[in-house]
Amino acid sequence: MRRLSTQEQNFKQVFADLLAFETVSDPELLKTVDQIIADVRLYGDAHVLKLTQQFDRHPAHQFSDLEVSQQQLKAAFDDLDKDVRAALEMAAVRIRAFHEAQKQDGWTYVDALGNTLGQKVTPLDRVGIYVPGGLASYPSSVLMNAVPAHVAGVQEIIMVVPAPNGELNPLVLAAAYLAGVHRVFTIGGAQAVAALAYGTETIPQVDKITGPGNRFVAAAKRAVFGQVGIDMIAGPSEILVYAEGVNNAKWLAMDVLSQAEHDTVAQAIFITPDEQLLNAVAEAVEIHLANLPKADIARTSIKNRGALVLVKDRTEAIELINQVAPEHLELCLDDAEAMSHQIRHAGAIFMGRYTPEAIGDYCAGPNHVLPTSGTARFSSPLGVYDFQKRSSLIMCSQDGVKSLAKTADILAQQENLDAHARSARYRYL
Amino acid sequence: MRRLSTQEQNFKQVFADLLAFETVSDPELLKTVDQIIADVRLYGDAHVLKLTQQFDRHPAHQFSDLEVSQQQLKAAFDDLDKDVRAALEMAAVRIRAFHEAQKQDGWTYVDALGNTLGQKVTPLDRVGIYVPGGLASYPSSVLMNAVPAHVAGVQEIIMVVPAPNGELNPLVLAAAYLAGVHRVFTIGGAQAVAALAYGTETIPQVDKITGPGNRFVAAAKRAVFGQVGIDMIAGPSEILVYAEGVNNAKWLAMDVLSQAEHDTVAQAIFITPDEQLLNAVAEAVEIHLANLPKADIARTSIKNRGALVLVKDRTEAIELINQVAPEHLELCLDDAEAMSHQIRHAGAIFMGRYTPEAIGDYCAGPNHVLPTSGTARFSSPLGVYDFQKRSSLIMCSQDGVKSLAKTADILAQQENLDAHARSARYRYL
Repeated sequence: MRRLSTQEQNFKQVFADLLAFETVSDPELLKTVDQIIADVRLYGDAHVLKLTQQFDRHPAHQFSDLEVSQQQLKAAFDDLDKDVRAALEMAAVRIRAFHEAQKQDGWTYVDALGNTLGQKVTPLDRVGIYVPGGLASYPSSVLMNAVPAHVAGVQEIIMVVPAPNGELNPLVLAAAYLAGVHRVFTIGGAQAVAALAYGTETIPQVDKITGPGNRFVAAAKRAVFGQVGIDMIAGPSEILVYAEGVNNAKWLAMDVLSQAEHDTVAQAIFITPDEQLLNAVAEAVEIHLANLPKADIARTSIKNRGALVLVKDRTEAIELINQVAPEHLELCLDDAEAMSHQIRHAGAIFMGRYTPEAIGDYCAGPNHVLPTSGTARFSSPLGVYDFQKRSSLIMCSQDGVKSLAKTADILAQQENLDAHARSARYRYL
Repeated sequence: MRRLSTQEQNFKQVFADLLAFETVSDPELLKTVDQIIADVRLYGDAHVLKLTQQFDRHPAHQFSDLEVSQQQLKAAFDDLDKDVRAALEMAAVRIRAFHEAQKQDGWTYVDALGNTLGQKVTPLDRVGIYVPGGLASYPSSVLMNAVPAHVAGVQEIIMVVPAPNGELNPLVLAAAYLAGVHRVFTIGGAQAVAALAYGTETIPQVDKITGPGNRFVAAAKRAVFGQVGIDMIAGPSEILVYAEGVNNAKWLAMDVLSQAEHDTVAQAIFITPDEQLLNAVAEAVEIHLANLPKADIARTSIKNRGALVLVKDRTEAIELINQVAPEHLELCLDDAEAMSHQIRHAGAIFMGRYTPEAIGDYCAGPNHVLPTSGTARFSSPLGVYDFQKRSSLIMCSQDGVKSLAKTADILAQQENLDAHARSARYRYL
């Protein structure tokens, strides 16, 4: 695994290059996606069915074949192995508990003039959840997207999941049942995003689309943004592990590999001021790789984007962490909590030696949909707040409005907005 | 002014057509914007200067001529007319007070197993505020963008405002001073957005860009979304006024016109179950238009996109309002607050007869940057929360992690993520 040290002369440049990751926007892909969206708007169900038959080789004959009934969802849940079912249920309960704590309420206050001001919080009416199909079809992602929507009070949660050759992961359906998804369609790609954004004869138009997908899905989400809300454009997964003091190198190495096994472009970085520990982790990574089912993916990820970084001290590490703004951050040291106060940017912070990132992916409670590629600088984990929105409330009293109206009158005149000024003036003159 | 009644047979279609507004995406414009962004990334300051000289006819000779010093901001503030200064100060104080109430704090809790879970809230490091230049250069917009960022704790607020022919509205500079803007550059268009998103030799790279602009600015914001955060893609302004019972038709008509005067594509809709009031408002609109400075704009707006809608009752009105999801909603009736509980979607709700929308534009306290074109279905007013972001916190105890790790182990195996499973297993076996 690549080794870097902040003491090297060109460290800053090398480290910046390591972090750089840009999804090239492909004009051909954008054209294809725009065309798909236009055609779905024009031809509705028929076009979605046609593309699903074509791209997913789905054996459906009519559009109704693409909907999965609640009975089918329940059957998938009932058929689960006992241990898997218990695990999924525990995950759902914990995710729900954490997200309940996130729920926001409205508030009002009365100002000194007697005017009432406030903020009303309401759930979105209807949302669409995109769940990738095939290999990357994860039941945990269903819970992580649907539970926050459910907690927010969304009345209708529509899930789309492509079913290549008509095949579906039953665990994904079971998770949909458990999470309270209202309708499920086995469609995917840009056509699914377009159908959710604009509605078809069968698929109701939603207000927001969340969930990750391939580059067609990402491009389609960007294109329909504004027509509907979207969560974020997800990049490859990342982990940054910082360790200090007594640590088990085998554990740390496996934590690093747990991101690397996701994707050849995933990024796993290990930082420590302890050169011995760095050596031990490097060695443990190689040992683990020798018998990891996804060793090929992990090896490529680590070769291309991974690094072991030796720092002078914790202060230097904090600087690097804030520069990276990692999706997942593990702080494996005694006073992890104290260190966390100095972290300005991270999707999720896993503190102490008994908090592997993997438990956050499934059942710790917080969401596993997190800002990637440094976007933790300005964005947040997926949460209940993504399925709620706010309206401002203003109610002036007959007396209380007077000084406000006078102020508005003066400022509106400065902006040459005469109707504004006169509308205000009526209330105080 | 166009009249509609829900009793007409084709009302639904006519009303839907009235609301329809789609900004056509122009491939030529997108190409131009992409090129500008690429060139600003490549050539930095030099290219921004060149485009500013070219598009804004700015007389600057070197890039440093494009920065406005804090001394200049202060001078603009000190030179204000006494009444205008007092009005601007009152607005800033009230906007700050409302937004302080919006500020979010982090939280943690300990679960039954002894694990700590929580959410950390941190401000963005640095943000860019786009303020339109020329005619639509509004000091109120400076306050509405900069004050929430300041309240959130953003360390560096960079404002860009184009100065056609090098000319600036001194009130905009005064507002920047009052709101605590840290640096001001007189640049605009896609080049300003690109400079903020990627940074140049002089302009620091920001984490988020907020504020409205023309279609070049909107296209550039969409293009850099992901590289930085953006607030929203703003559409034309709208108002929906609902009135019932005793009302002053002149007031209502002026409230309607206060949106219509903004823009020929602004939308002003008046709804009532009272036909006499509808007639009176129609008449008052015409009378006002006869001596309104911006009558031409308002008349075009009303002709193209305005309507007076007669409904059967309040229930029907509520349905229409939730369909429109208006940016601004006035409820001019006795029990406005009770009615507001049934409104699911609106940017801001102005309640009662003494709460004209115009005071919300300047000094009521809530933000005047609001979701337009029905996007209140899924988005919120600009707020302190736009300048804060969250990180999840997870800290397991040595005992508390055991059952979580076991659950993660089981689910990770189902997802064929072996390194995840093994990383979890280390913590409980």
